[in-house]
Amino acid sequence: GAPGAPVMGGFPGQPQDPLYSYFAAVAGQDGQISADELQTCLTQSNISGAYKPFNLETCRLMIGMLDRDFSHTMGFNEFKELWSVLNAWKQHFMSIDRDQSGTVDPQEMHQAVASMGYRLSPQAMNGIIKRYSTHGKISFDDYVACCIKLRTLTDLFRKRDQAGQGVATFQYDDFIQCVMST
Amino acid sequence: GAPGAPVMGGFPGQPQDPLYSYFAAVAGQDGQISADELQTCLTQSNISGAYKPFNLETCRLMIGMLDRDFSHTMGFNEFKELWSVLNAWKQHFMSIDRDQSGTVDPQEMHQAVASMGYRLSPQAMNGIIKRYSTHGKISFDDYVACCIKLRTLTDLFRKRDQAGQGVATFQYDDFIQCVMST
Repeated sequence: GAPGAPVMGGFPGQPQDPLYSYFAAVAGQDGQISADELQTCLTQSNISGAYKPFNLETCRLMIGMLDRDFSHTMGFNEFKELWSVLNAWKQHFMSIDRDQSGTVDPQEMHQAVASMGYRLSPQAMNGIIKRYSTHGKISFDDYVACCIKLRTLTDLFRKRDQAGQGVATFQYDDFIQCVMST
Repeated sequence: GAPGAPVMGGFPGQPQDPLYSYFAAVAGQDGQISADELQTCLTQSNISGAYKPFNLETCRLMIGMLDRDFSHTMGFNEFKELWSVLNAWKQHFMSIDRDQSGTVDPQEMHQAVASMGYRLSPQAMNGIIKRYSTHGKISFDDYVACCIKLRTLTDLFRKRDQAGQGVATFQYDDFIQCVMST
């Protein structure tokens, strides 16, 4: 978000958003959250349920997803938006995790990705699942990273697949720029 | 690496490779290192010099780089190879980091990427550098992640740019498989 953008909680007499104290605790003086500050915030909230540091890579992906002004940081409004998206993902993750183990196994992940409407070959699917697994299980933060990346890359691809034939052509510079930033 | 592949240090009377105890401490019973075990190992070695957890994403990229059998884990021989590559990168990183701050600033990173022979637009370069920066600085583990990704993606692109014109065409499934695995 743009530095200096108005945030809630600054006006006397106005009820403060309960999320604001959370945001303010990590945002520091600039009123913005960077990827490492988001990591601190999400680790403290224990949203993953795993009592270990939330994956920094996932934080970068989430900021990139909402980063409309290319600042690579997040203001309070973006933070609120993220919080609501993240809770929706958490609900979905818990519904896939049938045995409530806190992680998802490859077969559950396979079904989840397929249910999101991605049509991928078994080879691509297996590669993705292995990539985001640790000891054969997918944690919540890796699940989120995988979902964001799949969506972002699919969107990037579609924009370059004007005929809608499942084939896209990239210039080298455009390819690197797209893919390095996800 | 393939499980059960022979590793050094198992034969009585043979001098043990000094790196082996390092490897064995994290590899556990299967004789293989996964990304999270590599993270533990590199955090303990403090190769980044930052006294904080080594980036898990970088560990996954490094294992992917050497993962010839698609096991997503690493045997002792791959670990030794990685160790030597990582030390070469550390030397390079320290030579770029002129003020010996332990991090590299965007301009130093710009020169480093250019000196590796990548021809990128200022826009692509700035996007990459912002992506791998924390508070305007690039740490050693993020530098490594950036180098591996740039090389892997450039190789993938070139294989599909048969005319060498800087233009490549991807099928959707191939695109997702390539890019999700880096």
